[in-house]
Amino acid sequence: MKAADYVASSPLPDEDRTPSPVGAAAHVVIVGAGFGGLACAKALGGGPHRVTVIDRRNYHLFVPLLYQVATAALSPADIAAPIRRVLARYRNVDTVLGEVLGVDRVVRRVRLKDGGHLPYDVLILATGSMYNYFGQDAWAEFAPGVKTIDNARAIRARLLRAFEAAEIEADPERRRRLLTTVVIGGGPTGVEMAGAVAELARFTLAKDFHRIDSKTARVILIEAAPKLLTAFPETLSQYALEALGKLGVEVRLNTKVENIEAGVVVAGGERIEAEAIVWGAGIRAAAGADWLGIAPDRLGRIAVASDLSAPGQDRVYVLGDLARLEQDGEVLPALAQVASQQGLHLGHALKRLDAAALKAGPLTLAPFRYASRGDTAVIGRSSAVFVIGRWSLKRGLAWVLWGLIHIYLLIGFDRRLSVAMQWMWRYLTTEGGARLID
Amino acid sequence: MKAADYVASSPLPDEDRTPSPVGAAAHVVIVGAGFGGLACAKALGGGPHRVTVIDRRNYHLFVPLLYQVATAALSPADIAAPIRRVLARYRNVDTVLGEVLGVDRVVRRVRLKDGGHLPYDVLILATGSMYNYFGQDAWAEFAPGVKTIDNARAIRARLLRAFEAAEIEADPERRRRLLTTVVIGGGPTGVEMAGAVAELARFTLAKDFHRIDSKTARVILIEAAPKLLTAFPETLSQYALEALGKLGVEVRLNTKVENIEAGVVVAGGERIEAEAIVWGAGIRAAAGADWLGIAPDRLGRIAVASDLSAPGQDRVYVLGDLARLEQDGEVLPALAQVASQQGLHLGHALKRLDAAALKAGPLTLAPFRYASRGDTAVIGRSSAVFVIGRWSLKRGLAWVLWGLIHIYLLIGFDRRLSVAMQWMWRYLTTEGGARLID
Repeated sequence: MKAADYVASSPLPDEDRTPSPVGAAAHVVIVGAGFGGLACAKALGGGPHRVTVIDRRNYHLFVPLLYQVATAALSPADIAAPIRRVLARYRNVDTVLGEVLGVDRVVRRVRLKDGGHLPYDVLILATGSMYNYFGQDAWAEFAPGVKTIDNARAIRARLLRAFEAAEIEADPERRRRLLTTVVIGGGPTGVEMAGAVAELARFTLAKDFHRIDSKTARVILIEAAPKLLTAFPETLSQYALEALGKLGVEVRLNTKVENIEAGVVVAGGERIEAEAIVWGAGIRAAAGADWLGIAPDRLGRIAVASDLSAPGQDRVYVLGDLARLEQDGEVLPALAQVASQQGLHLGHALKRLDAAALKAGPLTLAPFRYASRGDTAVIGRSSAVFVIGRWSLKRGLAWVLWGLIHIYLLIGFDRRLSVAMQWMWRYLTTEGGARLID
Repeated sequence: MKAADYVASSPLPDEDRTPSPVGAAAHVVIVGAGFGGLACAKALGGGPHRVTVIDRRNYHLFVPLLYQVATAALSPADIAAPIRRVLARYRNVDTVLGEVLGVDRVVRRVRLKDGGHLPYDVLILATGSMYNYFGQDAWAEFAPGVKTIDNARAIRARLLRAFEAAEIEADPERRRRLLTTVVIGGGPTGVEMAGAVAELARFTLAKDFHRIDSKTARVILIEAAPKLLTAFPETLSQYALEALGKLGVEVRLNTKVENIEAGVVVAGGERIEAEAIVWGAGIRAAAGADWLGIAPDRLGRIAVASDLSAPGQDRVYVLGDLARLEQDGEVLPALAQVASQQGLHLGHALKRLDAAALKAGPLTLAPFRYASRGDTAVIGRSSAVFVIGRWSLKRGLAWVLWGLIHIYLLIGFDRRLSVAMQWMWRYLTTEGGARLID
C-alpha cells in the first residue's frame, strides 16, 4: 500500500481542499460506490455540481452474483466494474480510492484514513451493509458471509480444497465431514448458495473425481424461521423448499444456530461437522451513524426522513442499506433496487438545484417513494422464483427472467457478454467456471 | 488450509500406499502439472499404467499469458484450467493436490508435505522454474516477477493503485514517481510486459482519469544485453525496439541493474524512482535436483541424458525448465513447447512398455529431439514478432498469428472462447479487462 503514503497529506489538489467559494460550483461528496452511491453519482453526472465519489475499493461489486464466485461459476472480475470507468464520461464526477474515518460536521468535511480531508457542501452516505452475526462476531472466522470478493474467494477455495482432500482421504468419517457443507440462513443468499453448492457437487465436479462420488456431498441449509424466502409468497417458499430437496439439499427449518466453531455447527441441539460453513443469515448497516453522532437502530441503520435526509443534520443524506425508511408502515428492505432508486431520486433532486442553494443551508427535497420492480431468487439450473406485485412465477420461466434481469443489470458491456456466454456454456455443458484455489 | 490436516496421515487410500505388487499395473508419478507434466500425463492417459499427477496448485497455469493478468487485461481464471478437469477423462490418471518435500530413492517413494508418501515405479519431475534474482533475493520483494497468479495480482494492484494515487496527488514530483514503471529484462516477458503497461496507460486508462493525463506515464525497460529479444533474429529485435519506442517505452540497452529497493531501481549508475517495478530478467529451475542428490548447473537444472533420464538414477526422468539438455551443441531453451514435446515423448515411450518393464529396473528409452514450432512475442496492439526456422515475421500478421496460436493453446474451451471474445472486444474498444485492486 505504498501509494497510500502519497495521498496522506493531500487527498485532492489544493483548489479542492479549500471550501468552494460562493459562486463556484457546489461540491457533493458521496461515500460508497454501491448501487445507491453509483446511481446517485450518475444522476448528478453532467449537472452543475462538482461530485466526488469515495470508496475503499476501486470497483463496484455486483453483490447479488457474488455467490457464483463463491461456487466457482464466475470470476471476480466478471461481477466487478471499475468505479472510475463507470463514471468516466461525467467530467464533473471525480473518483477517489480512499477510506473514510469520520465526518467533521461543523467545518463540513470528510476525514480520510490517509490523514487527508475532503470538504463538502452536501454529503451523501451510501456505505451499505455487512454480515450480522448477532453479537457472535467470533463466528465470522468459521462461517464467512458472501459480501466481499475475499469472502467469495475464501469460500471457493475451502469448497474446492475439501473435495481435493476427500479424494485422497482414506478414513470414511473424515471423508464424510470434508464433503459436508452447511449454509446458514434461508433468505435469497442462503437459498442461492445452497443450490449452487449442490449443483457444483452433482454436476460440475461429478466427472472429475475418480475415488469419491462427489454426488454424495451433503449440503445442509439451516433457517430459524418456519419457511424459506420469507419475503416471498407462501407458494414460492414452498417451491424453493421442494426444488432444493430435489437437488439433495437438506433443509432444516425452525432451527436455531446455537454455536459455530472451526468445522462445527451446533444447531437445534444437533452437532454438525462440516468442512465449509457459509453465513447468510442477516446483515447490519456499515459505518455511518457514528460519523454523524446519530443513534442507529439495532441493525445500525439511520432512520431518515422521507426525503432521505439524516435527522438533525444539515444537507446530509443517507441511502440504501444504511438508511432506515418506512413506507406504508413497512421498513424498506435492503435491496439493490431500493438503493438505486434512492440514489437516482436524490441525484435528480439535487441536480435541479443551483450551487447557491446547495451552499446556503437547509434544503427540503421531494419525498422518495419506492416502487418494486419485482423480487427474484434462483435455486438452480432452470429453477428460480420471481414475484412482482400480486403476480408470481416459478421454475424455468422465472429462471430465464432472473438470468435476463441480472445480465441486464450487470455493469460493463464486455463483462455482460462474457457472463452471458459463460452461463450459456455451463447450462449446455454443466462445466464449471473459475475453479481456482487461491 | 484445514483440509490439509486430513491428508496428513494418508496421502492416498491404502491400496495405493503399498508398492504395487508384481503383476499389478505399474505406477508412474509425475510431479508438476505445467506444460511438461500435463502433456506427459495425457500421453499416458488410457494406457496400461496407473498415473498420479501431483501439484501444489489445483490448476494448470498458462504462464505465457500471465502478463495480461498483471496488466489488467485478463482474469486469473481465464488462463488457469483445473488440472483435475483437464485429466478427468483418463480413468488411469489421478490428480493429487499436494506439495512434494523430497524423494526416498531407495524405497522409491515421494515424500509429501502433509507427512504422507507416494510410492512410484517411475518418477517424472516437471517442477518448472521460478525467477532468478542472481543471488539478490531481497530484490524479489520490491520487483516481483510474473510467474504466479499472486505475482500477477500484486503487480496489477500496484499499477492500478499508482494511477489512483497519482490522480489525487498534488505534488508533481510524487505524481511523476507514481506514474513511472520499470520493467527489468528485455526477453519476451519484459517486452510483453512493457508494451502492455504502456498500452494500459495510453489507451485503457486514458479516458478514466480527469486530473492526470495517464499518457504521461513513463515505462522504462532495462536490458543488460545490447539488444532486445536476444533469441530472435536481429531484424525482429530491431523492430521490437522501434515498436516499443512508438508506444513511448524508454528502452535502456547495455544497462545493468545495480540495486533495487522499495520504489527505486539503480541501473547504469542512474537512480530511477518508480512505483511499480517488474522483474523479468531470467529464471532458474525449481526444486528437484536436491531431491535426487544431483549437483545442478548454476541455474538449478539437472543435466539429463538424451532420453530425459536423470544421471545415475533408476527410472527417474526430468522434463521442461528443470531439465538441461543439449541438442546440436545448444542447450534447449526454457519454453512451454519444449516441455510439452518432452512430456509427450516420454509419455508415449512409457505407454508402449508393460508393467513388468516399468518395475524391473533400468530402462532405455528413445532419445528426445526438439522441433521448434516457432517463437513469438507480442509488443502491443497489432504488433508482434514471429519466427520459425529461417522464416521470420513482424507487425500485424505476426500479431494475428500470435493471437491464434495462444487461443489455440489455451486449455479449456469455454475459457478459450471467453478470452478470444475479450481480446476482440478490447481490440475494438481499447477497453480494459479485469481492473481489480485486491
